[in-house]
Amino acid sequence: MAIRALTFDVFGTVVDWRTSVIRELEALGARLGIERDWAAITDDWRYDGYMRGTNKVRKGELPFMTADALHRRKLDALLAEHGIEGLDEAAIDHLNRAWHRLDPWPDAVAGIARLRSKFVVSTLSNGNVALLVNMAKHAGLTWDCVLSAELTGAFKPDPECYLRGARFLGLEPGEVMMVAAHKFDLLAAQKVGLHAAFVPRPTEAGPNVTVDLEPDPGFDYVATDFHDLAAQLGV
Amino acid sequence: MAIRALTFDVFGTVVDWRTSVIRELEALGARLGIERDWAAITDDWRYDGYMRGTNKVRKGELPFMTADALHRRKLDALLAEHGIEGLDEAAIDHLNRAWHRLDPWPDAVAGIARLRSKFVVSTLSNGNVALLVNMAKHAGLTWDCVLSAELTGAFKPDPECYLRGARFLGLEPGEVMMVAAHKFDLLAAQKVGLHAAFVPRPTEAGPNVTVDLEPDPGFDYVATDFHDLAAQLGV
Repeated sequence: MAIRALTFDVFGTVVDWRTSVIRELEALGARLGIERDWAAITDDWRYDGYMRGTNKVRKGELPFMTADALHRRKLDALLAEHGIEGLDEAAIDHLNRAWHRLDPWPDAVAGIARLRSKFVVSTLSNGNVALLVNMAKHAGLTWDCVLSAELTGAFKPDPECYLRGARFLGLEPGEVMMVAAHKFDLLAAQKVGLHAAFVPRPTEAGPNVTVDLEPDPGFDYVATDFHDLAAQLGV
Repeated sequence: MAIRALTFDVFGTVVDWRTSVIRELEALGARLGIERDWAAITDDWRYDGYMRGTNKVRKGELPFMTADALHRRKLDALLAEHGIEGLDEAAIDHLNRAWHRLDPWPDAVAGIARLRSKFVVSTLSNGNVALLVNMAKHAGLTWDCVLSAELTGAFKPDPECYLRGARFLGLEPGEVMMVAAHKFDLLAAQKVGLHAAFVPRPTEAGPNVTVDLEPDPGFDYVATDFHDLAAQLGV
């Protein structure tokens, strides 16, 4: 069965969330005239707010909510915890949308455009639709479709997220390949019949964290970036 | 409140469904060596199968189903009614996807690209996601987002379709403008707070049908095509 569509994980795979969010927080700190460990706050926002948040939803410990809502929930806690004051509602909302303004990895825009000439290219992200649409505008990314956990009603790595994503595209799971920098995402996609392309992003978690770059032997493709993936796919 | 996104009706507004489907049916007739009134069959497929079909779903007379399923339901009836034989399942499925291969109006690709430089441009169609994605690939259209009744869970002109569409984009209804060739669609969108741009397509229904081209006095914009709309919107 030929691969017809590539569905992309976004945070970390397509965009460099960490550098982008740290930069926004540093600019905020400069404006407010305060110093904090912005990198640590960014990581806490990401890993406790978003990653643990989506897992709490998956386990039924939280009701379904968008990535925006999970980010905001954690942001409110972070502002209190770190004594960051003087922000009105509009400023907090703007800050929360730092996740809508993430910069792409250097190969992402051109690499996805190249892949788009042969495949349907879609997001398949736990980020909500508005976040993904605004991010694409910010980053200059062009998608054929914006698929999100908000639409599938299930966060990755729940099987339903991948299966409903394929169904929305009118395809069998075996006609879809998940593209991600994270092995758990690819392994879950493969478990329900999708193909898997591993594109590790060694600097995603910052300079002090060692990322697991060892591909699973079962992955269909392993590529250094989206151009390498395109070349391997004959685009 | 500034308009941030344009949501487009698709069948008739962006693509010329009638000419495209008649052409596919004529080619089929030539292959099968049969003559039928392909234009009449196309109109029946559209108006009885799809338009009346979506309305039956809206009234609860049919369960929710995709546009593909509504098209197929009617196609099976049409093949029987007109004695069109000799098609296997793959050929019938391919024929049903004629609605995925509709050609854009001459101004549509460039006009939407132009509007996309200033606004979020999205479909807001009763067509299902796969149909819209495949059609965009076929026609060379680029959307920022593919919104569909399949995702909102409600067919236009149900208010929920417009309201959930705006919500997916993270916008207030007043930040969204519906673009359509059909007044019922625009009036329903306006009723729940969206703006309305009327772009009549005089030849949509064919040479023998007079289309209502008289704009409602309440429409925000009336344009001859998408370039005219872009010019009026200062793009």
